[in-house]
Amino acid sequence: MAYRIERLNKISEVKGIDAFLITSPISVRFLCGYFYNFEIGPSPFHFLPAALFVVPSQIAGLVIADNETDQLAALDVRIAVNRYSSYVYDKPLDYLSRFLVKIHELIKQSGIGTARIGIESDSLPFSLAESLTFKFPEIKLVNISRDLEHLRLIKDSDELDLIRAATHLCDIGQEAVLKYAKPGMTELELFTLVRGDMDTATGKRVPMMADMVCGSRTAEGGGNPSGKKIISGDLILSDLTPCLNGYWGDSCNTVVVEEPTSGQRKTFSEVKKALDIAINAIRPGVKAMEIDRLMRSHIGNFPHHGGHGVGIMYHEEPRIVPYNDMELASNMVIALEPAIYKKDYGIRLEHMVVVTEYGCEILTKFQHCLK
Amino acid sequence: MAYRIERLNKISEVKGIDAFLITSPISVRFLCGYFYNFEIGPSPFHFLPAALFVVPSQIAGLVIADNETDQLAALDVRIAVNRYSSYVYDKPLDYLSRFLVKIHELIKQSGIGTARIGIESDSLPFSLAESLTFKFPEIKLVNISRDLEHLRLIKDSDELDLIRAATHLCDIGQEAVLKYAKPGMTELELFTLVRGDMDTATGKRVPMMADMVCGSRTAEGGGNPSGKKIISGDLILSDLTPCLNGYWGDSCNTVVVEEPTSGQRKTFSEVKKALDIAINAIRPGVKAMEIDRLMRSHIGNFPHHGGHGVGIMYHEEPRIVPYNDMELASNMVIALEPAIYKKDYGIRLEHMVVVTEYGCEILTKFQHCLK
Repeated sequence: MAYRIERLNKISEVKGIDAFLITSPISVRFLCGYFYNFEIGPSPFHFLPAALFVVPSQIAGLVIADNETDQLAALDVRIAVNRYSSYVYDKPLDYLSRFLVKIHELIKQSGIGTARIGIESDSLPFSLAESLTFKFPEIKLVNISRDLEHLRLIKDSDELDLIRAATHLCDIGQEAVLKYAKPGMTELELFTLVRGDMDTATGKRVPMMADMVCGSRTAEGGGNPSGKKIISGDLILSDLTPCLNGYWGDSCNTVVVEEPTSGQRKTFSEVKKALDIAINAIRPGVKAMEIDRLMRSHIGNFPHHGGHGVGIMYHEEPRIVPYNDMELASNMVIALEPAIYKKDYGIRLEHMVVVTEYGCEILTKFQHCLK
Repeated sequence: MAYRIERLNKISEVKGIDAFLITSPISVRFLCGYFYNFEIGPSPFHFLPAALFVVPSQIAGLVIADNETDQLAALDVRIAVNRYSSYVYDKPLDYLSRFLVKIHELIKQSGIGTARIGIESDSLPFSLAESLTFKFPEIKLVNISRDLEHLRLIKDSDELDLIRAATHLCDIGQEAVLKYAKPGMTELELFTLVRGDMDTATGKRVPMMADMVCGSRTAEGGGNPSGKKIISGDLILSDLTPCLNGYWGDSCNTVVVEEPTSGQRKTFSEVKKALDIAINAIRPGVKAMEIDRLMRSHIGNFPHHGGHGVGIMYHEEPRIVPYNDMELASNMVIALEPAIYKKDYGIRLEHMVVVTEYGCEILTKFQHCLK
């Protein structure tokens, strides 16, 4: 994974950056492998779960709360680690100063007193920026957020492995929907069973975003599972988006409990056809907007994106949307999700693909089927 | 809830603050009621889910992403709302500038060009700070994080209602552990059933932190539920900490599957006695450290806090720890969690209480019992 940190060298050359202070959880995950599980909210024992300091070709050090270090081996983080004391009970919590001391030490050791430091403006806390400029008055902070986003567009093979593992969880979840959905249960009860299968397959809790709605709620395209009861003939729309070790999978199926109507069958086929058209059109060089256009020209407009990139964010570039003239390239990972929403029901079908040399490979292996 | 925003007036007077820009999700929840559900991670469509701008006795406005506004009615947010366009698919995402425009407008309308603005240094993004000082060069940013924390110490009656609802979920969860725990199931399978009951009782997904460990893992005091199988005679330690509408409940029980040993019975009684001693000692005026000392003097030392405040954070002041000479006061909410960890097993028992005029009321209603 060290090769990803080395990619900062290019930003360093182009923008004249002497060092980088990386503070967004996304970029930290991308560059060195550490992932903070956001699922239980911000910790009362951290300022930031981790920050990464890099002087190209010299120093790369992760500053991390000592109660977060259990994760490092599991996530195969192989970078120099600077722990600071976070949770204590025999003295007052003082994690902010302890964190800052570690950051200051790294900067001092690097000897870059008058440097231009690449930072992420949107995620750098003001207190950290203040402390840097107070302690090292000669440094200049330069926003490099967009450059980092650009680095994440094309996935590496280890990233593809992580994404494959996440999409495999989607398959397990979609299979569980078909297995468990019965009239009389609530959306929430179904969700509990589906998530249970996904967690069990992983051996741990998996953070997950999910639309799981039945009946008339499918017309709105989604929503959190609620206490609404599934009744015979209902459609169930399940958009399952798990985050496994920091990388997301994404998938959507719409199934019917018991017998579909002929109208539902017809709508389903149209959406399926739009998805197939998009998948067949994907190849390096084609524009994102062209894929989007193909779907809409088959099924008409729908009030959301036709798809999006997936990685450490569940919605990133390339956005498959009407304005986006970005050209697709090998090893981009994309979710495609055409939909038809009618007055009383909606059907959305989603697959994830990775762009290959001549086309794409479908990563989500489950079959879309109405029942 | 408007009365909580008015409490900023006092900080304003004491520190000479002309306006406040509140950016931490905790303080936004506290002051105006809006809660961002952190459970699915940071949104790709926000800069911040919400920020609150207040000029004491004049303006109080929430700046919020338009895809977050569904929550406002459910959470009874009654403040002026300034929506900005966040998710769009027909043009590029540009939520940062749209957010900043709203903030700038509010500041301009208030006419406070040379103001001292109270901010939260640790949660204010550098890009927002830069934009403020660029647009309004005369303003001065003053960190008021500690003052805000202090405001949260004593709970209001609406906060107590929210906390009671969260502790009721703890009761449901602890009852579910007793109902479902069986030899042969994994920690994770038990967790799925327990969380399912808690979600069903609420009618929606509830973010939750949970230790759920069995057998030898109880000796370490906790951990996430895993694929480890529960076997006959195992202890199961369940620390269930749900977050309902932004307020946390906290609870721990340790139960045995089938028959406890006499050693387990004895250890359980000792921990239970330590908890009872602490609960009986709680009253306004007693120091936090004294409650902590009482527990440790009964069962010996254990490697974590004796307890902590609970509210919009699951661990806040008053920390029940050896150094803390803070005096308890009416309407503080406290979790107490004495424990004994032996070589091969551990037992921790936790109740949540609210300090009353002459003592305390126990908020978690479940009974601690070994089986």
